[in-house]
Formats: sequence, structure tokens, C-alpha cells
Amino acid sequence: MSSNQWGIPKGTRDFGPETMAKRQYIFSCIAKVYKKFGFLPLETPSMEQLSVLTGKYGDEGDQLIFKVLNSGDYLKKTNTQDYELGSAAMLPKISEKGLRYDLTVPFARYVVNHRNDITLPFKRYQMQPVWRADRPQKGRYREFFQCDADVVGTDSLLCEAEIIAMINEVFHQLGIDDYSILINHRQILKAMSEAIGTPGQESALAVSLDKISKIGWEQVAEDLQSKGFDPTATDLLEPMTQWQCSVEQWPELQQTMQQQLGDSSAAKKGLDDLDETFAMLSDMGYQNPHIRIDATLARGLSYYTGTIFEVVVNNVQIGSVSGGGRYDDLTGVFGMPGISGVGISFGVDRLYDVMEELKLFPEEQLQFTKVLIIPMGSECKPVGLQLLSKLRGLQIATELYPDQVKFKKSMGYANKKGIPLVVLIGSDELASGSFTLKNMSSGKQETFEEADLIKSIQNL
Amino acid sequence: MSSNQWGIPKGTRDFGPETMAKRQYIFSCIAKVYKKFGFLPLETPSMEQLSVLTGKYGDEGDQLIFKVLNSGDYLKKTNTQDYELGSAAMLPKISEKGLRYDLTVPFARYVVNHRNDITLPFKRYQMQPVWRADRPQKGRYREFFQCDADVVGTDSLLCEAEIIAMINEVFHQLGIDDYSILINHRQILKAMSEAIGTPGQESALAVSLDKISKIGWEQVAEDLQSKGFDPTATDLLEPMTQWQCSVEQWPELQQTMQQQLGDSSAAKKGLDDLDETFAMLSDMGYQNPHIRIDATLARGLSYYTGTIFEVVVNNVQIGSVSGGGRYDDLTGVFGMPGISGVGISFGVDRLYDVMEELKLFPEEQLQFTKVLIIPMGSECKPVGLQLLSKLRGLQIATELYPDQVKFKKSMGYANKKGIPLVVLIGSDELASGSFTLKNMSSGKQETFEEADLIKSIQNL
Repeated sequence: MSSNQWGIPKGTRDFGPETMAKRQYIFSCIAKVYKKFGFLPLETPSMEQLSVLTGKYGDEGDQLIFKVLNSGDYLKKTNTQDYELGSAAMLPKISEKGLRYDLTVPFARYVVNHRNDITLPFKRYQMQPVWRADRPQKGRYREFFQCDADVVGTDSLLCEAEIIAMINEVFHQLGIDDYSILINHRQILKAMSEAIGTPGQESALAVSLDKISKIGWEQVAEDLQSKGFDPTATDLLEPMTQWQCSVEQWPELQQTMQQQLGDSSAAKKGLDDLDETFAMLSDMGYQNPHIRIDATLARGLSYYTGTIFEVVVNNVQIGSVSGGGRYDDLTGVFGMPGISGVGISFGVDRLYDVMEELKLFPEEQLQFTKVLIIPMGSECKPVGLQLLSKLRGLQIATELYPDQVKFKKSMGYANKKGIPLVVLIGSDELASGSFTLKNMSSGKQETFEEADLIKSIQNL
Repeated sequence: MSSNQWGIPKGTRDFGPETMAKRQYIFSCIAKVYKKFGFLPLETPSMEQLSVLTGKYGDEGDQLIFKVLNSGDYLKKTNTQDYELGSAAMLPKISEKGLRYDLTVPFARYVVNHRNDITLPFKRYQMQPVWRADRPQKGRYREFFQCDADVVGTDSLLCEAEIIAMINEVFHQLGIDDYSILINHRQILKAMSEAIGTPGQESALAVSLDKISKIGWEQVAEDLQSKGFDPTATDLLEPMTQWQCSVEQWPELQQTMQQQLGDSSAAKKGLDDLDETFAMLSDMGYQNPHIRIDATLARGLSYYTGTIFEVVVNNVQIGSVSGGGRYDDLTGVFGMPGISGVGISFGVDRLYDVMEELKLFPEEQLQFTKVLIIPMGSECKPVGLQLLSKLRGLQIATELYPDQVKFKKSMGYANKKGIPLVVLIGSDELASGSFTLKNMSSGKQETFEEADLIKSIQNL
């Protein structure tokens, strides 16, 4: 479609009815769980001031923000010198707004602006598109939806436990059984960095470790050494990358970690947090067969400071479908320090691909109209219209084919639209006050009086 | 908030939880009706190529499209001469995309792009934000949602009848009782223009007549005369502005119109269309007390060619809350002529204001969390967590207050969040294995065993 003169911008998509139905199914499953856990809906504007967005996503991120041209005579604040200084220098004079790049920064901005009317802890969920001027590629779009939930204003580890519980519920709702919730803690990574003799280097460590599932340990070690980690450090790190276990094996791994990481306060904090989180999940009755503690889980974003998690669907090569973690300072950049919180985000596009691959979309979600009424001849139309209203009155999605066309054409409409039941009204039916019901999948046809017809439709 | 350095762009809005709940209620009422009538969901990208958007909304409209700056070194295709030619001349070299201005043009573009995979008649609904760089004022925003439904690819007047039926159902769902569906036909306006001796002037006539409810007949007549309509024409027009009636009175008015408008083919088409539409509504069992035929209804948009309609809520000064009509040529501008259709659009922002003014939002829609569990002391937390899971398992939205704080603070949380039920677990309850349930509106407190507690909560 991109070569079409009326095509859509690259990296963007039209969502036709079938795709929409599937997407709406995913959104509604997630929203249902968020609401049950007490998260409230929030929406923020698509455009934010560039002063709000810039500097929050690193230099590369700033480049990827879509900028909106000031309206009207946008050059009026510029002069030839500005023009000659080039794109970057002229930008602030011709553009003041950008498109939302994620949902976290607008949420932080919202919390700051509404500090006086929100009640802490504040639990919000937000499902809106974001835009990034990234190079489009398979599975990466310039417009895509994020589905975030965050709770801010409390340090309680109940938040971590609830987010794990929410992940379990969402996947249960979606029908995805074989998945793993990978869990780690930024303070464990910090203690690891200390234990291998490179204190304070946990961010560099995190960036390299993050790639281990893709490139393997050898390459991670090389990567670290190229950043100045010496071989003693990587040798000490190697066995730690084996620190992976289920919740049942956690007490054992916890002991190993304690021994290897020593008395570090970071280690104590990380291990205690995970321990308390698992205890709360157990009190809540979750068996947690899906949890994998994994010391190599790092998550790139530098603002995480506590527990971090990521969800992968086993046997589907698509990367993580959900992730999040605790951060100590959401709003400091907007002048309101000390707001800690935990967030989770579901990747709808990837979940969509997983659901397609595993054929998990329920048939009934993809059905829109249940009954098509076809009056064969205009004299049959009034009876058809009466039936149309009766069925709709019973909350049955029903259509009446509007035009007098060949039978094949109206049946083709039912077929292509996936309508399972067709009611035919011809001169015989009109004469006898009856209706012929055709089941489109079985091909079976039966003739009924009105009351029986409606009963049959309701039962099918 | 606009003076805040972290404020949002003017004409845009944050939607906090309560507003969101109300908006979601309106959206879901409308979507439910659209689906029941066989309309399928569609979403198109927020950005479209400027070549798709430009020239579709008139010169003023083109000015109001938000343009997105090309990413990276956006000046690279320009030279000093382009700069010196000014904003308009330079625009095509620095911006290729704009934000969606309405949902109709993207829909037309979609139909053209997918002509080979959609089945006609094609019924779609679309609920997405649009952006206009208009001067913000009360009730007019730079980002706002449209909720459109269109059926294209059929001339059948069933479409018109169904849209009127949908309006009735949406208002019924929303609980708005006192409203009028104003109906007219572009061909009647054409015939009126002929009958007063100004054939072909129906567009100018429409623009002036459109203002009659705001400025009155005298001013409309002046307006028309300033456009070159002579006093004989306006004298002939004046009695026609009284052509207003209910469906019961329609046969009478129809006769008057036939007499006054003569043998004009436009008049015949307009009158016959309305007549058939009302007949179909009657077959569908609609009594139509809300319909007002009104010869002064004009609707500004020039692309309408058939029946036009607009909905006003009586006794609420807010203008029309919904409108639409039939157009003969949706996609001609994209090289695909002859696609006729009918569309309807609901103004969510105005409906929101109406619902607020009439206090029509149902209480239960605004309630999110039903139960807050407050463990008083950390030893009470495990029991609280068990209860939390049990209630959520019964699909009851429940929270547990995460922190150990003063009782007043956790109760304040329940109050501010509008949570109607609080379960208190203190040392007495822990010792006796019971729970105290506090009803926040009555203030009543009762102590229960778990099974009875759950029953009480389910019954409340």
C-alpha cells in the first residue's frame, strides 16, 4: 500500500474490522483486570509541550519525538540566521509541541499538575497510542498502543505482588498458558556489580546482561570487557548468570546469593524485597508456577531502582510481551521529588501476534452480526423490517440486506461478513406467515413460525 | 493549568478517572448500538499524508490541519530561497504528514485502498480523536473525539431509517428523553431555491438558513439579500421557513410542499425519500415522537446531497449533539467515483455536558473499586490478602490499603476514591476469625464470619 499515492505514512497501520475485534478483545481483557485491582482510567493529550518531553528519553529519544509545526505563519519568529544555523537550532522557533512518546512521562506530568486533587497511593491505567520516528521494521511501528498501569505514592511491596498477580490474571483471561514471569531486582544487580569488583557499574552491567538471551554469555563478556570490565570481573560474573530458579527453589538460591554477595546493603534490600513479595503472593493464594527468578534480567531503562519483571511466552519467538518495575523517583524531573511507584506495561502488538500464532482468539469475539434478513422482493420488506426490530430488541445484532439484488450477492454478503444465520423471506414465506432460517456453516435450512424462529436464533 | 511550565497545550485536556468513566460510558452506549445495527469497528492512523488531507476541508480547513515536521534534518530538502519565500512555500519541503482532521476523509481513503477486500455495502464505525488548530474556546477543543458510523455502497433508504433508529436507541440508552431529530433533504432545499426564483443557489441558501435558530428570520433575510437574493425571493422564502412538523403532520405538510414547490424533480425526490424513510420506520415499529421535519435545517457541509439530520436536546442550550446525512460521492476525490453513503456523528463532548447538566450519569458507572480492605497492623495483612483474592475471584473490584497508616488516612482514601464498602481487620477480628464491614454511605458497621461477609458484599 505504501507505493499508493493515497497510502498511509510508513510505520502506521489501518485496523480493519477483524483486526479491531481482536485488538479490542485484548484491550478489554487487560482493562478488566486493571479495574478489578483498583486502577483507574486516565487519558492525556496526544500532544505535549516539547519542554515536557525533551530530555526524558536520552538524546536518541529526543530525535525520535515527532514534532508538530506551530500553526499559521510558523516562520514568523525566525530570521535568515536561524535558518542558516540548521534544523536543530531553528526547531524551538517553529515547533512547541510533540507527539506523546510514551505514557510514563505524561503520567508523571499529570501527577505533578494534579498533586492537589489526587489521593495517594494513586493507581492509574492508561491505554493510548504513542508515536516514535523510529525506522519501521517487522513488529516495530511509528504509531503503537501502550497499556500501562502504575501505582505511585507507596513503597509497599504489595504493589509488586499485585502486579505479578495481574500478569497471571491477564494471561489467564487471554488463554495463554505457557509463559514465564522473569523477576530480578536492581539492588541485586548493584550488589553483583560490587561483588565482582566494579561497584557503581550496575548500569553498564545491566545494558550488557540484557542481551544475554539473544547473544549468549561469551559475547556479553566481550561486550563488558570492551567497556573496561576486566576478565577477573567477568569470570566472577559468569556463575552468577546461572542464578535462575522457580519460586520453590527460591530459598536455596537466596542462600547462595547471600553467601556470594556478602553483607552488601543492596543485596539485603534486593533479597528481602523478593522474599516479602513471594510471601505476599503466597498469602494471596497464588502458586506462581510461572515465576522465574533470573539474575540476568536487567531491563534497559535506567530509572528502575527496585524489583523488575518481564514476561516471555514460551515457544514463541517474539521477545518480551510485558515488563515493568519499581522506580524511586517518577516526578523529580518536574520538580516533585520522592514519588516512588511500580509500573507494568503490556505490549498489545506482540500479544496480538502471540494470540494469532497460538490461535487463541475466541470465535465468538470475531462475530459481529448474528443474523442477516434477506427479503426476496420488495413486498417482503415490511415483514423483514418488523423482524429486524424484534431481534434487535432482544439485543441480537441483526441486519437486513438493503438492496434488491440477486440471491447470490446477498448470500455472499453474509458469507464475507461471517454472519452465521440468514433469514429468508420470499413469497411462500409471506403467504404462510413463516420464515426460512439458513445456518451458514451447516447449510441446513428450516422453516419456522415467528416465535419458533426467534427461539431457534436465541439458542444458536 | 496553562500558565504552568509543565502545562498541556492549549485546547487539549487531561481526562482524570471520573471524567474517563463518564466518557467511557457514552462511548460504550454508542458502540453497543452501532454494533447491534451491523456496523464494524475501524481505526486509521493518527497521521495521514498531507496529500490525502489537503484540499478536502476548504482553504480555512487546510490552515487548521496540524502539520508534523519531517524527522531528522528536516531542512535538508530546502535552500535559502525556499526560506525566503515564507511558511506556505516551504511547508511541502519540511512536512509530509498531518494529524487527522476528521474521520470521514480517512474513511474514504480506507475504502479506496481496500476496494478489493471490503464487501459493499460496507458499514463501519470509528471512534477516534481528531485535531484542529482552531482558536480554543468554551466547548471547542484542539483535540476531540468523533464517533462516526457510515454505510457506503447502497442507495437504499433503509440506511436513513436505520440511522434515525440508531439515534433513538443511543438517546434511550443514555437516558436522554427530551430531544428532537430535525430532518430535511438537500433536494427540498434545492427545490426551494428554484421555487423562489434563484435556481442553483441552494448552497448559499443553506449557509444562511443554517443560522436561523440563532439569529432569527430578519437577519437571515438580510444575510441573503447581501448575497444578492432579491426581496421577492426572500418574501417567497419566509413562509417556507414555517415548514416544520411532526411525523403525524407529515402528510399534510408534504401536500403543502408539493403545491408550493411544483413539479420540480428535486422536490419529488426529496419528498419521496422522506416519505419512504418514515414508512420504513413505521414498519420497524418506531413511533417517532422525536422527529421534526424542518425545512430550515441546512447543515453546512456541502457534500450532502440527500436526507440530512441533526439532533438537539430540548431545554439545554448547547447546539446540536449529533448530525449527518447522505452524500453521493464519498471517494471521488481519491479517484473512485459513485460511492454513495449515509453517515452519522455523535458529539461526545457535548453529550457529556448534556448528561452532566441533566445528571444522567448512573452512579454505578462512576464506581470503580467496591471494597477496600484495611488490615490494622501488619499481623492482619495475611488474612486481608486471602480475602482480597477471594473477592477478586468473585469479580468484585477490591483493594487492600498497602501501607500501615493512621486509620483516618486509610478511611480518607476510601472516601476520596468513592469506595462504598470497607472491611476492617484488627486484633479483635483476627482473634475471632471475623471481619467488620463498614458501609461508607450509611456509616453502619457489622461484624461477620467470612462466608456471611462475602454474601453481604455481594448483596450490597
